[in-house]
Amino acid sequence: MMRVYLDHNATTPLCSAAREAMIKAMDLCGNPSSVHAEGRAAKAIVEKARSQVSTAFGADGADLVFTSGSTEGAALAMAGRDLMGSEIEHDAVRAWAVNGLPVNEQGLVTVSDPARSVLQLANSETGVIQSLPQGIAVTDATQAFGKLPVAFNWCGAEMALVSAHKLGGPKGIGALVMRRGTDLPAQIKGGGQEMGRRSGTENVIGIAGFGAAAQSAAKDLADGVWERVAELRNILEKALATTTVQTIFVGKEQQRLPNTLCFATPGWKGGTQVMQMDLAGFAISAGSACSSGKVRASGVLRAMGYDEATAESAIRVSLGPLTTETDVLRFADAWLAKEKKHRARAA
Amino acid sequence: MMRVYLDHNATTPLCSAAREAMIKAMDLCGNPSSVHAEGRAAKAIVEKARSQVSTAFGADGADLVFTSGSTEGAALAMAGRDLMGSEIEHDAVRAWAVNGLPVNEQGLVTVSDPARSVLQLANSETGVIQSLPQGIAVTDATQAFGKLPVAFNWCGAEMALVSAHKLGGPKGIGALVMRRGTDLPAQIKGGGQEMGRRSGTENVIGIAGFGAAAQSAAKDLADGVWERVAELRNILEKALATTTVQTIFVGKEQQRLPNTLCFATPGWKGGTQVMQMDLAGFAISAGSACSSGKVRASGVLRAMGYDEATAESAIRVSLGPLTTETDVLRFADAWLAKEKKHRARAA
Repeated sequence: MMRVYLDHNATTPLCSAAREAMIKAMDLCGNPSSVHAEGRAAKAIVEKARSQVSTAFGADGADLVFTSGSTEGAALAMAGRDLMGSEIEHDAVRAWAVNGLPVNEQGLVTVSDPARSVLQLANSETGVIQSLPQGIAVTDATQAFGKLPVAFNWCGAEMALVSAHKLGGPKGIGALVMRRGTDLPAQIKGGGQEMGRRSGTENVIGIAGFGAAAQSAAKDLADGVWERVAELRNILEKALATTTVQTIFVGKEQQRLPNTLCFATPGWKGGTQVMQMDLAGFAISAGSACSSGKVRASGVLRAMGYDEATAESAIRVSLGPLTTETDVLRFADAWLAKEKKHRARAA
Repeated sequence: MMRVYLDHNATTPLCSAAREAMIKAMDLCGNPSSVHAEGRAAKAIVEKARSQVSTAFGADGADLVFTSGSTEGAALAMAGRDLMGSEIEHDAVRAWAVNGLPVNEQGLVTVSDPARSVLQLANSETGVIQSLPQGIAVTDATQAFGKLPVAFNWCGAEMALVSAHKLGGPKGIGALVMRRGTDLPAQIKGGGQEMGRRSGTENVIGIAGFGAAAQSAAKDLADGVWERVAELRNILEKALATTTVQTIFVGKEQQRLPNTLCFATPGWKGGTQVMQMDLAGFAISAGSACSSGKVRASGVLRAMGYDEATAESAIRVSLGPLTTETDVLRFADAWLAKEKKHRARAA
């Protein structure tokens, strides 16, 4: 039986546009910093992709520095700045933020001093969307970019983190977007690439894939693909709610990413559910996909006030543009069957 | 007429093994940190490549941290350590080193305190190979790896920088190799990937390409490919020496990389030669290929004691495993013709 991949918030399959652009870029042999024809051709690929990502992110005219992903972007944007953040930020952001911004039971964060704070646009585990205050220093738009209509130039943020592999591009490439001319000391120094803000020979093939994926994602968004995905998510939510146990749908009352469903079934550990569903042919997750194999209670749910037992029973199902109704209904059937067995064992 | 690419020290064309491995990796959709089957498959790709690179670099049992390239590797290995270095190191290394190690006119560096110093294995501009002192803190093996028989475990270095795109792999992926268990604080923090030393979702496709390229490069080396390349380099050197002007072959008396030829023709600027040869169909360089379009006198040659006029007239021709005798002879003919014209104009 075909496996069903429902873990798009962890990473996405490479979209066909990205694949094609990457394979095409494989034929170029130049270094973008070389002045000869081969170098200029490689440079053109990088600049084309920069323009594609900028346009898709509503960041025309802003500065866009390619990084190896949002984790590097967070370090570049935040190291040494002691920005305030909340406990629901991704670990890559929390590594540099001073914890303190309050989170309510709906997953919404209150920011008191935007210019000294970081705030995600959407949460990777619950999908809950924040309303960005004007002048927020940094926003982590990693999960939102591609799934929501976002325009950097109008979102009120000074800097934003984005990553290719959350929207159909390859892993290992992302960008830090900032208002034009922002003073930003480099952390990776040397040859002076990326206007001196990030040295190192550019990941030309990955950058080509990022550009194509961003462009393709913007088209999907405009074509209403994510509205269809939201319907499937709602169908799934409804199907799962038929169980007699009290399953908690996290963030249901909030604006959420169209593809994300986070739900907790107290008494049945999330890690166990992930493994059982994996054996049944479905890829889902419990919490963020970071640091190999870690399975622990979701810090995001704990920060929202859920108790440990609830938090550790949460799983995340995240759909993609190619997910079908059959996929989600098959998942619902399989999960409900496992859940029934679990209850029988627990009784 | 087909162009001839003779700038392999700037970057190499993607080798067929790397291309194949990357395209294969494109079909995997998992995040290596995910516990489900898709995640484990991605993790397996990363670990296979780690093993391939380790074996090719003679580093079995050592720790190998994937980075976005040697520039990031230099920052990770060297930031805050104030290691002593010389003026012939790459800018990515010089950014973190305290300048001071003396360089002689042959391009050889004297190291007084290895445990507190950094030293390249081979110079990117001249190809001159250093003899590493036992216990050197960091060696930049970026240009040497793939072209010379190097075994990290026996080279005397505590850490080494390597990069995929210098040996037939993709740009944007490299590694920092170090003795097992070396204490190394992360600079890019978050999810805890790479044993906590370098967070961020792994560049799976790039890593797959690096592994395959390293394995292929090791085979080429064992098969004597670089001995053939050295012969072509020597044929080229001889052909160029037929000019009536005094062309200076830099590092000729030293052990050099088999593919590298650096020569200066005082009175004829290197940048001009690069542009003229580009128009004639040949990709070569003047100095390192870094920070877009920069054309200035080689700092490496200045450090070796050459005067400004000589340093700014140097160019680098660097061959690859697929370079043919026809390629180098065509280059020699074209260069000699241009040189003759230059002399006629200058007279």
